[in-house]
Amino acid sequence: MMKKSLGRIAECVEKRIAEDTFPDGIKPDYLMDAVRDYPMRGGKRLRPALVFWCGTLFDEQAEPRLLYPAAAVEIFHNWTLVHDDIIDRDDFRRREPACHVKLSEALQPLVPDRAERRRMGEGFAMLAGDLQHAWAMDMMRRSGEHGVAPKAVSGLIANMIRLGSHELISGEALDMELSLREVESIRPEEADAMIDLKTGALLQLAAETGAMAALQTGDVRAPEVAGIGRFALHCGRAFQMQDDLLGIFGSTPKLGKPIGNDLREAKRTPLLLTAFQKLSPAGRNALKNLLHRENYTPEMLDAARRLITECGAASAIEKRIADSAEECMAELNAFPDNNARKILTEFTAYLACRDS
Amino acid sequence: MMKKSLGRIAECVEKRIAEDTFPDGIKPDYLMDAVRDYPMRGGKRLRPALVFWCGTLFDEQAEPRLLYPAAAVEIFHNWTLVHDDIIDRDDFRRREPACHVKLSEALQPLVPDRAERRRMGEGFAMLAGDLQHAWAMDMMRRSGEHGVAPKAVSGLIANMIRLGSHELISGEALDMELSLREVESIRPEEADAMIDLKTGALLQLAAETGAMAALQTGDVRAPEVAGIGRFALHCGRAFQMQDDLLGIFGSTPKLGKPIGNDLREAKRTPLLLTAFQKLSPAGRNALKNLLHRENYTPEMLDAARRLITECGAASAIEKRIADSAEECMAELNAFPDNNARKILTEFTAYLACRDS
Repeated sequence: MMKKSLGRIAECVEKRIAEDTFPDGIKPDYLMDAVRDYPMRGGKRLRPALVFWCGTLFDEQAEPRLLYPAAAVEIFHNWTLVHDDIIDRDDFRRREPACHVKLSEALQPLVPDRAERRRMGEGFAMLAGDLQHAWAMDMMRRSGEHGVAPKAVSGLIANMIRLGSHELISGEALDMELSLREVESIRPEEADAMIDLKTGALLQLAAETGAMAALQTGDVRAPEVAGIGRFALHCGRAFQMQDDLLGIFGSTPKLGKPIGNDLREAKRTPLLLTAFQKLSPAGRNALKNLLHRENYTPEMLDAARRLITECGAASAIEKRIADSAEECMAELNAFPDNNARKILTEFTAYLACRDS
Repeated sequence: MMKKSLGRIAECVEKRIAEDTFPDGIKPDYLMDAVRDYPMRGGKRLRPALVFWCGTLFDEQAEPRLLYPAAAVEIFHNWTLVHDDIIDRDDFRRREPACHVKLSEALQPLVPDRAERRRMGEGFAMLAGDLQHAWAMDMMRRSGEHGVAPKAVSGLIANMIRLGSHELISGEALDMELSLREVESIRPEEADAMIDLKTGALLQLAAETGAMAALQTGDVRAPEVAGIGRFALHCGRAFQMQDDLLGIFGSTPKLGKPIGNDLREAKRTPLLLTAFQKLSPAGRNALKNLLHRENYTPEMLDAARRLITECGAASAIEKRIADSAEECMAELNAFPDNNARKILTEFTAYLACRDS
């Protein structure tokens, strides 16, 4: 049921984004193309789906007025990816060249020097993200012209700024800071706090946006809005910890990115930090030795997996994922049962056990 | 009269920005400090002053409700400076280290490698600008809680997105593109179009914001709003062409930046492009030879100034500045006379003949 609904929502949201005229007139043309690029690349579209599901949870007739808010949240998500990819030097996104890489390629005729071309590509990509940031705000603002009550729109924009900009960007900054610190100096709780900001805040935004638009309220403290917000925050935890497990224990073809990346970057996940906390000094050294490698052989991956499993870190994270899923269910069950609640229940189960 | 009014407005706006709680809670602390940094650094505060002057032009009682919109425009201006400084590798802003330089210094204990520290400083500065972008939007949104009618607020936000984000960022991108092309391949009209977007759009935003908040309208096509918008666009032309003249003919101590920078960067100004258009092939080569130097001796500056003057480019630009100032006056004189109109008249004269 979830898959079918997700497909239908993805199609509507993609159509809305494709038809939107906001990017028209952006100059030069390659910058305009870059602004449309990530939002049109697909991906799971989980965030706009959350807007729809959490909206129809409270009003099954609300669908038409959820489209603009859902598209706004999706575009918002994408501008943060564009800027993250520059910062993290991630040159691929959804199996295609990243925004800054594509822009640097577009500059080939103008900039012969490769390093300078890369730098200019990053500069233009920064501007592409800035434009998408404005696009997201504008799409949310225009929801007021498509069914959302004016008093709700101001609250929706305020919430996008609070959760989307303020919290999410703080999360990205904390993630950068953690990446600069020695792995062993970081407590797992620090990574937990970072995840709530970097991943949780945007899911919370999606869920609260749906609820607010459905209930026609600008008040984030309304009990339904607050409840579905907590649901989404727990979803974020389950989603991210599962992501981290897949980054070590998953399969390269399913994920579409090489297993080993997380070890190479020594990604500061609760999983890795819990392992460092639980391992003996010898085990800690062995694991440390397996970080920051150029290439990962199957033997090296196996050794890392064994260390992380045998100290109990993997099962501790699995337990925490299950706990988060349970918290999600507790929040959901406080609301009346309907079709949307069934899908959100399925969504919770999916988060906790997906393999890609 | 203008100076006194400017001082008073600067003080009010600085107080509003300093007291605003938006940056509270941004993590890590050095990122929070960076978000407050540029908006608190001073500068001329011409844009928020334009908001006040163009507002009180239409309603002398409007002052109290112009404060939030003025602060929003000023913060908006500053986020674009933060991102521009990264792109242009400008390491100073208002005689202090640029945002990315300060952030890179804050990372000294965490990142021993100098190049990596610089790169991370740029990453954090990008996020600081993103947060200021959101801050500006939020400040404009909150003007609705401080006297601006809700129907006007939506129009104010829409206009900030159209002129501030869409046009201004296109202008920055065009500026980058021009900097990558051969000077001799660029027509002066291309630089004119870029200036309208990069400089004019933000002044237009300031002027229209003041008028809309004063008139309590969200309609940018209202005749007063459109008229004052054209006034500001002409101001932008006069301001930028005067800036370009000062960049070649000004004095280093007054400007606070070395004369010669514009020649070193071969800044694609209407002034330089007109000179290339007017010079003989021999003169063109001589001027080309004076671009991109490491250091500029007084003799080299003199030679460049002579070439630009003798071909008639300097006087052509002076004429265009005078024409723009006249257009400004024509727009202004269509409105009833009052104190604000007197100040705006003085402002127009100042733009066309300032020496710093």
